[in-house]
Amino acid sequence: MTIDSIAISKLTERLGYQFNTPALLVQALTHRSFAANNNERLEFLGDSALNFIVAHQLFQRFSKLPEGDLSRLRAQLVKESTLSEIALSLELGDALKLGEGELKSAGWRRPSILADALEAIIGAVYLDGGFASVESLILKLYQDKLAQIDPKLIDKDPKSQLQEYLQGKKIDLPDYKVVSINGEAHAQIFKIECVIEKCAISTLGEGTSRRIAEQQAAQLALEKIKDDR
Amino acid sequence: MTIDSIAISKLTERLGYQFNTPALLVQALTHRSFAANNNERLEFLGDSALNFIVAHQLFQRFSKLPEGDLSRLRAQLVKESTLSEIALSLELGDALKLGEGELKSAGWRRPSILADALEAIIGAVYLDGGFASVESLILKLYQDKLAQIDPKLIDKDPKSQLQEYLQGKKIDLPDYKVVSINGEAHAQIFKIECVIEKCAISTLGEGTSRRIAEQQAAQLALEKIKDDR
Repeated sequence: MTIDSIAISKLTERLGYQFNTPALLVQALTHRSFAANNNERLEFLGDSALNFIVAHQLFQRFSKLPEGDLSRLRAQLVKESTLSEIALSLELGDALKLGEGELKSAGWRRPSILADALEAIIGAVYLDGGFASVESLILKLYQDKLAQIDPKLIDKDPKSQLQEYLQGKKIDLPDYKVVSINGEAHAQIFKIECVIEKCAISTLGEGTSRRIAEQQAAQLALEKIKDDR
Repeated sequence: MTIDSIAISKLTERLGYQFNTPALLVQALTHRSFAANNNERLEFLGDSALNFIVAHQLFQRFSKLPEGDLSRLRAQLVKESTLSEIALSLELGDALKLGEGELKSAGWRRPSILADALEAIIGAVYLDGGFASVESLILKLYQDKLAQIDPKLIDKDPKSQLQEYLQGKKIDLPDYKVVSINGEAHAQIFKIECVIEKCAISTLGEGTSRRIAEQQAAQLALEKIKDDR
């Protein structure tokens, strides 16, 4: 066995998944600095699989949490530093295929490279074994992190806070209106107005998704309400 | 049959999916203006299911496209206006449960409400019927749109353009370095530096994801290269 194939067989063991097509795992470990046939497309696929499966886990486990909280919990679980931490625990760096420049600059321990490769592995497992396989891989990788979440420690998001405040005062819920959407499809900027007629409040939020813009507008409305009291 | 149940049974027929738990469909159609037990959590789940399944379709159908192009194609397919168009074709608006304010302002035809409800239905079908059911629903809903995509009409993204240019000149690929990550987990701003040592080029991109920031940095690097020629 070569050093490479030893690293890959150790990684396979830690993943707890045996590939039907081992070439998929090799591709998932191939950084763009090494070859044109690299892991970037698999990363795109794996990223979305991870987002979905983690969303479902949070949805199931926290049946009372509003979507804003679920969204924030997920962001914590799928962010680069969390992914690279999991990748380190798998000793994924040993099995990476990196170009010379990346080898010189210790690319095997760079968080972005580790996180991308882990997402690519997730994509590769989905292609290789289907949905059930990738779901159980993610459950295995995230077992501890999912178990450690304490929903009581989540700050309520601004929209939920505003809604609860208004419901407590028996005031109609705010109206969120799209003011404008600008930019290219993959990098749009949304402007959303939050209107609370009864309080004569109108605020403007901005962000790269409707959700983020709404939260910002709600935050500003909350601040206005506090100022008015 | 009441007017409501007629609208729901018509919608079920158009969706081509029979719910085991019809209450899930009703919840997916319930706007937050109507009830506390509304469709916002299902929308969160459905949004991520849609992103994943569309990502996989594009991955399969366009085996030569780089991830930047796949990402842009997906953004076109899952954006609000596309979703609300599909929702209109399903006559989804007739089955919505809206509060009084939304009824007065014709909320049943507002694109954001329609798009959210469609995503919530996608989430509900996943919970009700599992992955195979939601995958075939999305394939049905997107059949025409997926068939109409012409990858030749996609502009290359800046990272791919830059990579091709440098490969043509036999220059080492650019290095993308994270300069900073700021902001809360669900609304982070990434600053990424694109370095091309051989050309003494260094540019800074900013965005709400690493990908967007990298693309911006690559775009700026491309412009510098053009200026230098």
